[in-house]
Amino acid sequence: MPAHKPSCVVLGGSGFIGTNLCRRLLRSGHRVRAFGRQFRFPDDLRGVEWYQGDFCDPDSVAAAIETFDIVFHLVHGAMPYAANLAMATDVQRNVIPSITLLELCSKLGIKRVIFSSSGGTIYGSAPQIPTPEPSSADPICAYGISKLAIEKYLALYEHFYSLDFRVLRIANPFGPFQIAWKGQGFIAAAVSRALSGQEIEVWGDGSVVRDFVFIDDVIDAFEAVMSDTGSTRIYNIGTGEGRSLREVIAVIERLLGVELAIKWGPARPLDIPVSVVSIDRATNALGWRPKTHFETGIGITIDWAREYRPVIDKLFR
Amino acid sequence: MPAHKPSCVVLGGSGFIGTNLCRRLLRSGHRVRAFGRQFRFPDDLRGVEWYQGDFCDPDSVAAAIETFDIVFHLVHGAMPYAANLAMATDVQRNVIPSITLLELCSKLGIKRVIFSSSGGTIYGSAPQIPTPEPSSADPICAYGISKLAIEKYLALYEHFYSLDFRVLRIANPFGPFQIAWKGQGFIAAAVSRALSGQEIEVWGDGSVVRDFVFIDDVIDAFEAVMSDTGSTRIYNIGTGEGRSLREVIAVIERLLGVELAIKWGPARPLDIPVSVVSIDRATNALGWRPKTHFETGIGITIDWAREYRPVIDKLFR
Repeated sequence: MPAHKPSCVVLGGSGFIGTNLCRRLLRSGHRVRAFGRQFRFPDDLRGVEWYQGDFCDPDSVAAAIETFDIVFHLVHGAMPYAANLAMATDVQRNVIPSITLLELCSKLGIKRVIFSSSGGTIYGSAPQIPTPEPSSADPICAYGISKLAIEKYLALYEHFYSLDFRVLRIANPFGPFQIAWKGQGFIAAAVSRALSGQEIEVWGDGSVVRDFVFIDDVIDAFEAVMSDTGSTRIYNIGTGEGRSLREVIAVIERLLGVELAIKWGPARPLDIPVSVVSIDRATNALGWRPKTHFETGIGITIDWAREYRPVIDKLFR
Repeated sequence: MPAHKPSCVVLGGSGFIGTNLCRRLLRSGHRVRAFGRQFRFPDDLRGVEWYQGDFCDPDSVAAAIETFDIVFHLVHGAMPYAANLAMATDVQRNVIPSITLLELCSKLGIKRVIFSSSGGTIYGSAPQIPTPEPSSADPICAYGISKLAIEKYLALYEHFYSLDFRVLRIANPFGPFQIAWKGQGFIAAAVSRALSGQEIEVWGDGSVVRDFVFIDDVIDAFEAVMSDTGSTRIYNIGTGEGRSLREVIAVIERLLGVELAIKWGPARPLDIPVSVVSIDRATNALGWRPKTHFETGIGITIDWAREYRPVIDKLFR
């Protein structure tokens, strides 16, 4: 453990994972700066330095990260489905500014870059379930390819410039501060629609299986890799267990005591049938493991969604 | 075998591999169009339709490929070493226009895209030598990452839009029409410098091992994948055998009957010690195998370099 607490700048600090990460880092006593386009939850991030900027603007990024120890790279301009519709734009807005970021980190002497990659999309239709990290990365969505490319550039910057990094391939995170927009997060969408009595859209027959991991457990993993001194760079972060959308719906219905209205849509080509990551590596190397029972996580998510409905309504309507 | 010979457009048709490919396709009775920025060897490509254009200009690419059956994608704007110095530009000039190309191919009903990837850089420091295709792709140069990303987008376009494709991961090709500029091709550089009595630059101690494959054998592989009906998409193309730069120098010295003047430089971080690809997959699935003995290939290369010195001098000086 380092004697002084490293200062942290969180790119994408106003997003779902970013907001949770900033709150935790602050509680743990770090100096924390959040960088992003829109400061959505200022009341929840008191004590966090807010730095408004565009990830595609190198000057803005340079000014935001300078003098910080650890850079958390959580930015992804496009959600999985949107990225497929504009793949070149996705590269333009994510891969290229990520390369620029690494160049800046290297020049500015950043001590470690921690990148949130995608355990849910990077492997594609993996032959092995749960899928371990050395499996072939064959994404069947543009979002996953961008994430993979950024991982490769991280390794390259370490090879050429000794820039230190860690990658978390996060499965399907859910929890407070996840907002159901731009197609992000089935659970967030299901909960918010259930609470407002709206229909929930399910693509396919609901048999699709995902590895849903509660956000607090994901944040534990971010904290664990901050001080990781091992030689491993890439860790899956999930639960190692799969749940179908039908099962998720059943849990939400049980906790809310209502039957959800579901609008069944056609299956989409980007929806692989089963995506579950193996978490043995993170468990062995970091001593990390998810602690939150799925139903407990859903309960917390429902409570949050109830409490924050006015805030979110104000933000997005 | 198809009843009619498919028409072929070769993007990067005026480069090293492109020139050889166009010549062969023409001889085999195909309609052939070469697309590129500069028509270097018009005398050698009589009968080939030349289409001048920039790969980064979608309109130009669209007009060039429309109505053709097979698109050969051999363009790479930056050579391996240069790509490391400007990684974002490399993505900008290669990955993004490649995505645009795939979109166009899909819209225009192109029957097959054949992409020249890099067997020499895509695997990085592979633990298994010779390296088979399913090995982890961990390039330690930006050029390899771009190639890898383009391969992944090809798979995505097949997944979403049924765009048919094949990838050749070509090891270290050498032979006629390879010009020693922009750091391309150790053999081309060594031969041309030897013939002009100049010093040859060798980075490191010459122990670096590469899989040098003669261009005619590479072109055989392109012909073989044109009509491939199997389910495999990616093939290594090399010899499966490694040769050190010292061995290569010795062969050139023997054939020329002179001792080469060598300027030893420091080892470069992008030069992995050993790169040799396994060619079992191509041999089994395509019935392809390299036929040219290494010394024979070097002999042909020397003869070509002697004959073309005036042409090349005119082009590049």
